[in-house]
Amino acid sequence: MQRVDTVRLAQRCMEMCDALAKCTEEEGHITRTFLAEPTHEAHRLLRAWMEQAGMAVQVDAAGNLRGVYAAEVGNAPRLLMGSHIDTVPDAGAYDGVLGVVMAIALVEGLAGGKLNYAIEVVAFSEEEGVRFGVPFLGSRALTGDAEPLLERADADGISVRQAIRNFGLDPERLAEARVQQPVLGFMEMHIEQGPVLESLGQGVGIVEAIVGQSRLQLAFTGRANHAGTTPMHLRQDALVAAAEWIALVEREASATAGLVATVGQMQVKPGAGNVVPGEAVMSLDVRHADDTERRMAVELFLHRAQEIAQRRGLMLTHSIRMEHSAVQMDVALTARLEAAAHAVGQHPLCMTSGAGHDAMVMAQQFPVAMLFLRSPGGISHHPEEAVLVEDVAAALEIGCQFLQELENR
Amino acid sequence: MQRVDTVRLAQRCMEMCDALAKCTEEEGHITRTFLAEPTHEAHRLLRAWMEQAGMAVQVDAAGNLRGVYAAEVGNAPRLLMGSHIDTVPDAGAYDGVLGVVMAIALVEGLAGGKLNYAIEVVAFSEEEGVRFGVPFLGSRALTGDAEPLLERADADGISVRQAIRNFGLDPERLAEARVQQPVLGFMEMHIEQGPVLESLGQGVGIVEAIVGQSRLQLAFTGRANHAGTTPMHLRQDALVAAAEWIALVEREASATAGLVATVGQMQVKPGAGNVVPGEAVMSLDVRHADDTERRMAVELFLHRAQEIAQRRGLMLTHSIRMEHSAVQMDVALTARLEAAAHAVGQHPLCMTSGAGHDAMVMAQQFPVAMLFLRSPGGISHHPEEAVLVEDVAAALEIGCQFLQELENR
Repeated sequence: MQRVDTVRLAQRCMEMCDALAKCTEEEGHITRTFLAEPTHEAHRLLRAWMEQAGMAVQVDAAGNLRGVYAAEVGNAPRLLMGSHIDTVPDAGAYDGVLGVVMAIALVEGLAGGKLNYAIEVVAFSEEEGVRFGVPFLGSRALTGDAEPLLERADADGISVRQAIRNFGLDPERLAEARVQQPVLGFMEMHIEQGPVLESLGQGVGIVEAIVGQSRLQLAFTGRANHAGTTPMHLRQDALVAAAEWIALVEREASATAGLVATVGQMQVKPGAGNVVPGEAVMSLDVRHADDTERRMAVELFLHRAQEIAQRRGLMLTHSIRMEHSAVQMDVALTARLEAAAHAVGQHPLCMTSGAGHDAMVMAQQFPVAMLFLRSPGGISHHPEEAVLVEDVAAALEIGCQFLQELENR
Repeated sequence: MQRVDTVRLAQRCMEMCDALAKCTEEEGHITRTFLAEPTHEAHRLLRAWMEQAGMAVQVDAAGNLRGVYAAEVGNAPRLLMGSHIDTVPDAGAYDGVLGVVMAIALVEGLAGGKLNYAIEVVAFSEEEGVRFGVPFLGSRALTGDAEPLLERADADGISVRQAIRNFGLDPERLAEARVQQPVLGFMEMHIEQGPVLESLGQGVGIVEAIVGQSRLQLAFTGRANHAGTTPMHLRQDALVAAAEWIALVEREASATAGLVATVGQMQVKPGAGNVVPGEAVMSLDVRHADDTERRMAVELFLHRAQEIAQRRGLMLTHSIRMEHSAVQMDVALTARLEAAAHAVGQHPLCMTSGAGHDAMVMAQQFPVAMLFLRSPGGISHHPEEAVLVEDVAAALEIGCQFLQELENR
């Protein structure tokens, strides 16, 4: 393989992201939900770039645009690369999209040279869960797990099945979207969407695991009382109990490496300035790359809440709203990515992803690896979302070397 | 004065409260706002009881029903007694009303015997502030301070002036409602509406002061962030800052005798379970019988909030929404009430009122004293609001003796 000009390719990636940002449902904002009209234009652009790079392009029945770059021989295994092209409402230009255009750029970098494996670049149709309230429609089609979602309806009552038909595709052919073996693995490049790389002055990170997550609802119930006539020692103030607990959750989470715990919602009843709160209802979101650590943390937080309730004469209730396990990246494929980085003189941070990604679904059937790119300001899901062109170049350099490493496998 | 059967009179008070509870805007609930239709029926009952006890009854232009029990000689000074007969929505049967019927009962107890001072029993038309969003319309008419409220409108756009006309009264005669001197003072009997007397096993208390009050709004502003991708040490979580502060407010308030501080409202933005809160907006209600103590507490709470914001890299904003000074009861009149209690072998708790009362307004022009009756469960502004008949009897016994003490002044 010849030496690739990754700086030029990185610039080209930025231009491709800019072009895709114009495919939007909302003039002046970037909003591109699953199979909405502007997806046609995004597909047109991507197809042109893929074909130019020498790929054979198809759209599967789930709306995933897939370009295959053939190997030098038939029947060779395939490396999958890519990310999603749907967005949240009023999104940035890089979440998902960047990983797709970078994969195309890596194939462009081959300049027509063939490898002993094929490359399939996938522009997943759906990852954000905006339109149908459930994420990963695109990647679930590749793992053969999208069928159960066909009757799900969007806010207008349109089913996934109908949305697929409306886009000009045949939902009956969904099974054909499943990836056939042999597959070397799936490699996803994605912006970090968090502040970790930036805070450490690093441009690129290698993901070791995507965190598991627990979501709970908790309520302290005390007694609403007159704020003037009820002395402090005769109160059963639900908000003060909640406050004590929230401060403690922060303390415990900060003291546990890799743990994040968030109270993002809080409702106080009756909610009048002159009434001692009788009820405080909160959400709790707990994430860790190690499921045991996460479960232990949830147990501890509930135990502490119970202690606080008991000491204050309140009642505590809770329910678990969601729970999913951590997903480990493939050790061998990730080691190869790391080796590629070292080979080009880079030392990316080994890190955890706090958010879900297509790689999470793909990991159920294929070896997966992920490369993170620094998010300036940690900002994502926001028009100010950004990426530095030098980080894109650095990641592409690792990517080129990764393809080479695979060639030498 | 002959010996009065206060047990029988207390029983009669309970019956009068029951009868007045039936004068309501909502079948099955007790709701009687300022000059609403059921006030006519309440006035009819009260007028009959007052006249039976030997009083001359009038309704002033603010809708206050006022019964005068003449002195044995003309031109004698007057003792004012009473409380309010309006209620909050879905109220209990005793808040305000009990003080009116107990005042009538004390006059009944005189059994026609005359004193060297006149007694005027006032059933104030408005104290709760429900209909016009401002309290004390009734008592402000007696102190000549109701005029500025005449153009205030209720939720239906009806002005105080029009409401008075609709009730069949003449707002032009409001000035005549002002009490003429000489006045010995105003004595109000009222349920405590709090748990203090009950918690100490006392039936009756003597109020020394009505607390001053500060109401503030505070907001911590940090940065909303992804709950999964933002490590604990890189967060600017507004809710955690608020929680730390709320716990601290409770601690400081509990450590200061007579201070109550309440955070009754709390809004968290953006308010999603998977987003680190970027903003937390709270109310703060601070009360103390000593204005300096209250102001120092507010200063301390703001200072602590500022410290927390600074340490956490957040912004703190605040505004003072309301502030009113403590009102001291008249020392001499209160001493007379205490002497009366001791004379009948009782030792009521000397205490602070955490809520406002008509006595607060009357104190601006007259010597005032207040007697509190135990609130079972500390409950008020609620259908379960109660009073014990033995506490009513005990308070009436003090009241009878108080009238006697004044006779001997």
